[in-house]
Amino acid sequence: MDYKEGDRIRVEKGGAAYEGVVMPSVTGHIVLKMVSGYNVGIEPDGAQITFLEQKKEIQKPEKQGKVTKNKGLKNVVFISTGGTIASKIDYRSGAVSSQCSADDIVRTIPELDDIANIRGRVVTNILSENMKPHIWTELARAVYEEISNGADGIVIAHGTDTMMYSAAALAFMLDTPVPVVFVGSQRSADRPSSDNVMNAICATKVAVSDIAEICTVMHESSSDDRCAIHYATRVRKMHTSRRDAFQSINSRQIGFVDYATGEITTESEYTARGETELALKEKIEPECAIVKFTPGAKAEILGHYIDAGYKGIVIEGTGLGHVSTDWVPEIKRATEANIPIVIASQCLHGRVCDRVYDTGTDMLKAGAIEAEDMLPEVALVKLMCVLGQTSDLPEVRKLMQEKRANEISDCSLE
Amino acid sequence: MDYKEGDRIRVEKGGAAYEGVVMPSVTGHIVLKMVSGYNVGIEPDGAQITFLEQKKEIQKPEKQGKVTKNKGLKNVVFISTGGTIASKIDYRSGAVSSQCSADDIVRTIPELDDIANIRGRVVTNILSENMKPHIWTELARAVYEEISNGADGIVIAHGTDTMMYSAAALAFMLDTPVPVVFVGSQRSADRPSSDNVMNAICATKVAVSDIAEICTVMHESSSDDRCAIHYATRVRKMHTSRRDAFQSINSRQIGFVDYATGEITTESEYTARGETELALKEKIEPECAIVKFTPGAKAEILGHYIDAGYKGIVIEGTGLGHVSTDWVPEIKRATEANIPIVIASQCLHGRVCDRVYDTGTDMLKAGAIEAEDMLPEVALVKLMCVLGQTSDLPEVRKLMQEKRANEISDCSLE
Repeated sequence: MDYKEGDRIRVEKGGAAYEGVVMPSVTGHIVLKMVSGYNVGIEPDGAQITFLEQKKEIQKPEKQGKVTKNKGLKNVVFISTGGTIASKIDYRSGAVSSQCSADDIVRTIPELDDIANIRGRVVTNILSENMKPHIWTELARAVYEEISNGADGIVIAHGTDTMMYSAAALAFMLDTPVPVVFVGSQRSADRPSSDNVMNAICATKVAVSDIAEICTVMHESSSDDRCAIHYATRVRKMHTSRRDAFQSINSRQIGFVDYATGEITTESEYTARGETELALKEKIEPECAIVKFTPGAKAEILGHYIDAGYKGIVIEGTGLGHVSTDWVPEIKRATEANIPIVIASQCLHGRVCDRVYDTGTDMLKAGAIEAEDMLPEVALVKLMCVLGQTSDLPEVRKLMQEKRANEISDCSLE
Repeated sequence: MDYKEGDRIRVEKGGAAYEGVVMPSVTGHIVLKMVSGYNVGIEPDGAQITFLEQKKEIQKPEKQGKVTKNKGLKNVVFISTGGTIASKIDYRSGAVSSQCSADDIVRTIPELDDIANIRGRVVTNILSENMKPHIWTELARAVYEEISNGADGIVIAHGTDTMMYSAAALAFMLDTPVPVVFVGSQRSADRPSSDNVMNAICATKVAVSDIAEICTVMHESSSDDRCAIHYATRVRKMHTSRRDAFQSINSRQIGFVDYATGEITTESEYTARGETELALKEKIEPECAIVKFTPGAKAEILGHYIDAGYKGIVIEGTGLGHVSTDWVPEIKRATEANIPIVIASQCLHGRVCDRVYDTGTDMLKAGAIEAEDMLPEVALVKLMCVLGQTSDLPEVRKLMQEKRANEISDCSLE
């Protein structure tokens, strides 16, 4: 059966049938992009193939290629880390190349050219799940450099899986006088329901706005009307696949971008452009971990992290931030070994409070540090950043409980 | 300064001031129950105390004490595990005794007497964070016994911190011909905003209803109008302190109980009373753990669990269920050692799908078992229950991916 990339075919094998567009494959499998947007890989051996339709030629967009600097527009640097969004896309075959030059971006989403003078920079090209703390440092340095060199705004295209961690890291590492906007795409660009064009356009609108925050811009709902602007330290991916997966937790959003009009409305305080001086604290301590407490979980688990030389641990406790009583001696042992134990809640919403019940007060006596209303993942990233600055336990405690980048809100229990 | 339990006093110390009702204290601290409902403990040393108001005598409820069996009503057994709800409460001082006889319950919430013939049974008396898998077995046995002996419905009062784990455990261990209803209280009974009376009444309404499911009944919203009835395997505590903390995830609720009218409306399928034969599979394998993947988390973490002799592991991956590429060999090693590795998502909402990206397919090839749209915590409990029945890996895989107690919904990606 003769077919080439971009053709639509039907493959039957082992009782199952798949229809879709043939994608590039390096493994020898037949890779099909299905209508759902998902790819499926099928061993060709024994598969029955029916040809359905030839590759359609792509209509060239009207604006093609040339990036000409417009003096009336702000300069935005588009940093790529390997996410799908704003990569070079063949809309018909769905093949994605993640090299991301300015030309590529403007060719893919020509509307960006009307919003800003866009220049591209590739920091890394990895799958989001392979993101590591040392790449956060590279990313923070790149952003620092670009702003030093006069960028009026930064857009960082990032895979959605670990975007919340990277965005939080930059929020703790950088003080910025201009917008630094993380953006991603939940659906690959060739899907009818793809969110990448809208998200990229809205993110660029924020990058040229007055909102000099490190933030994340993603679809607000499953319709295509607005993107939400989230504080980098308050947003969490709350769905495996929906376009509106990103939600602010324990905080309102900073605001919204209307896709049709480009208008930005805000509902929270933000630092205005130029208010903050550019600064970089790039040192971090990556030897930190999250331990999730579950019923019956043995104290030896926490013990392992202490003995393995971790420098800081976040416990995702139950409810107000609890572990079973038999974990308390291990918390004490960690504290005595100068390893901070930070308590967050697996509830995600709400504030940790260990003053209400006995177990909590025992945990506090043993040295546990309450993460207030920080997300557990954000508490982990913050702990890495704080331990990059100091290993003095009282100082770590103070910094962990002090608001640095909107990650904590004020509260009085009384 | 002279004061006694139940009096309202003001304590000033170190620049802070607290007003509240004096609670019993065994530590020598002054313990105050504040208007917010929270307790605060203050070292009496150097504290300045002002007397505000004497203890108010409690109005005795009209219906007091006597449990007389009403032949027109169903028989409900109220099982206590140490939760606050339906314990014996001094409404004024807030002191809670968790011994829970039928008399105590009806004395506390006399309205229950009109709904069912209530009998109490104490299974354990612990803080919810000290719940262990072997107590799930005791609890399941107690429920089995009571239903064998003719109970028409069971209400289990449970601390909210680990209620989702216990409820899921019973859902996997028991087949029940009558309702088995978990209920808890987010606020202690003396708070003006306490949810315990409404939750207990609504839970009892469900216990006498036709809904023969293992379920959880808690406030639907922060107002006092309805309780939601959740499948035990689909509900998660999503807030540290709000009354409406319990939310169904990846599923609709079974239905609602209107507090004012007692009317039950349903919006999902349920097994009707008498449809299922009573059965108990009480054997579980507690040596299982959840490992949460975060950026930069080292593969040695997973390695530790394998080497420490755990029998099954749930990985809370990112997005569709991913870990970094360097974890894949450890997944393979676990599988080869007959240790099932189950993949759930830290997004909580949505379905795991490792067929879309390269890392995922590598994980599947290494033997990872997708938890479909199960909550990670429920996947852990289910894994314990499944491993109680078999350690045959292909069988474990099959059982983990088969719906047993509404924990998975059907889907087709195409």
